[in-house]
Amino acid sequence: MSKPVVAIVGATGAVGVEFLQLLEERNFPLAELRLLASPRSAGKKMGFKGTEITVEALTAEAFRGVDIALFSAGGAISREFAPAAVRAGAVVVDNSSAFRMDEGVPLVVPEINPEAAKSHKGIIANPNCSTIIAAVPLWPLHKQNPIKRLIAATYQAASGAGAAGMAELEASTRAYLAGETPEPKVFPHVYAFNLFSHNTKIDPANGYNEEELKMVKETRKIFGDASIRISSTCIRVPVLRAHAIALDVEFERPTTPDEVRALLAKAPGVRVVDDPVANYFPMPKDASGQGDILAGRIRADISDPSGRSVALFVAGDQLLKGAALNAVQIAELL
Amino acid sequence: MSKPVVAIVGATGAVGVEFLQLLEERNFPLAELRLLASPRSAGKKMGFKGTEITVEALTAEAFRGVDIALFSAGGAISREFAPAAVRAGAVVVDNSSAFRMDEGVPLVVPEINPEAAKSHKGIIANPNCSTIIAAVPLWPLHKQNPIKRLIAATYQAASGAGAAGMAELEASTRAYLAGETPEPKVFPHVYAFNLFSHNTKIDPANGYNEEELKMVKETRKIFGDASIRISSTCIRVPVLRAHAIALDVEFERPTTPDEVRALLAKAPGVRVVDDPVANYFPMPKDASGQGDILAGRIRADISDPSGRSVALFVAGDQLLKGAALNAVQIAELL
Repeated sequence: MSKPVVAIVGATGAVGVEFLQLLEERNFPLAELRLLASPRSAGKKMGFKGTEITVEALTAEAFRGVDIALFSAGGAISREFAPAAVRAGAVVVDNSSAFRMDEGVPLVVPEINPEAAKSHKGIIANPNCSTIIAAVPLWPLHKQNPIKRLIAATYQAASGAGAAGMAELEASTRAYLAGETPEPKVFPHVYAFNLFSHNTKIDPANGYNEEELKMVKETRKIFGDASIRISSTCIRVPVLRAHAIALDVEFERPTTPDEVRALLAKAPGVRVVDDPVANYFPMPKDASGQGDILAGRIRADISDPSGRSVALFVAGDQLLKGAALNAVQIAELL
Repeated sequence: MSKPVVAIVGATGAVGVEFLQLLEERNFPLAELRLLASPRSAGKKMGFKGTEITVEALTAEAFRGVDIALFSAGGAISREFAPAAVRAGAVVVDNSSAFRMDEGVPLVVPEINPEAAKSHKGIIANPNCSTIIAAVPLWPLHKQNPIKRLIAATYQAASGAGAAGMAELEASTRAYLAGETPEPKVFPHVYAFNLFSHNTKIDPANGYNEEELKMVKETRKIFGDASIRISSTCIRVPVLRAHAIALDVEFERPTTPDEVRALLAKAPGVRVVDDPVANYFPMPKDASGQGDILAGRIRADISDPSGRSVALFVAGDQLLKGAALNAVQIAELL
């Protein structure tokens, strides 16, 4: 591909803003950058490499001449407009869940399965944020010693619900501190100094919510291993933009924290933050604005006498590696 | 015991304040209530049943005539003054970790092992807050179908570090929202919109921190079952006063979410909050100020094909059932 024409769909959203910044920072080769958003954002100007680009209203026609379309405007918009982008000749990198589990759609984390991107039929899906943040550090371990079972508990940031979610956490907290009663709008519950089960639909068949089932199904698809048994509990915590996850991992064969630490130390996209003496471990504060996933609290799970289980704690920027950065890395593969 | 003379040690702390309120609310029979605290708090007046009680400086002599001493002023104070209280004839209910694992000291949760309180030799220990909040809902399940393995991930509130911890979370958040850089003092890390691994010492032998090992050892002691295998990850989240815990429980025999829900519905000290249709589950906001532990998200762990594992999510007020309420309930057993 010579220098491509790139379109960002959902350019004014929390992930959209990160797309612009990443394309600039990484000096992504561009013939042209088009910013698409809802009609109410059309006409807005956004800065890019010292110039300003005017946001256009998203229409099926807006994809004419586009080579790569980065979608991050929710599943409904992706379902409506991604086919039009593909018909116009673009490769869509879609950050929504719309096509992730579709058979012909590769689900790609460049550190894990870059080769899958090549088999696309116009759409490449970007995985769920919690899935990516857990998968990047788990993959080098799985390659060495297959993961048989994974139990995850997430600590998810407001940014998972976009700029509006982050604004609600701030507004809710300001109201609480002012002695007022915060009114939730984006989320179903008061967010200030509170936490709650992820507000996606619960599957009546098994009691897991959609976010949890994404972690289960998407991890298996990305790893190409349908046999990994996964349970997840997804919780939204009052943090702005980086997710953390407590992981309990059971491997096929016995392992040690030192072995896990050594594998993670040389893993692409991972930074080991594991200092028991200083009590310094992965935190959202440190993960925010970072491309790497932070991994630490690496220890043998003392509840598994077989020596096959390891506990660890990871944190990653939900808007970067959990969304925009992974999608831009996919675009770079093209 | 006729109406006892009760002393509260650490009366001006976060748990101390709850002690006063609980003794009043529950109309605890009292001949006299004495409030003891550090010399710098001596002379302060605290309201109780419409009167005011003056805080006295904590000394070994202050226990003369005291029948029950409720300690919540940290392990060092308990180690220094609890023996003096016992020598003066008082029964100490100690909220610190100083004596919990001592052989002759009962570790009591009244819903679980009230009979253990009878065997005290002057000191009864109140368990760690996370331990209590997990143990209360787990006990009725364990009685029915022994728990073989437990994997816990906590979401712990600032109140675990007392009033100063709660004040730091509020101050840190105000500073952040004002565009300033919060300066941590009580905690080792910035707390505003951040979370971090519990700031207790890491055991170099196994990589677990003290808080996590308390959950492991204390749960076994309270349940009277040293065979339960437990792993815990303890995380402080920016919530003010109620802890939440994601629990993955493996039982001896297969079970079902319905069976677990039915057992919890009739369990003392537990309220089932488990509405998948409304997406309403245990939250710190709802647990705050409540004596009951909220339990929900009850589902069969899909990563265990044997049908023996259940996942659930619980929340409980760290200052009440996690500390003051449990201690007052122990005092009521006397």
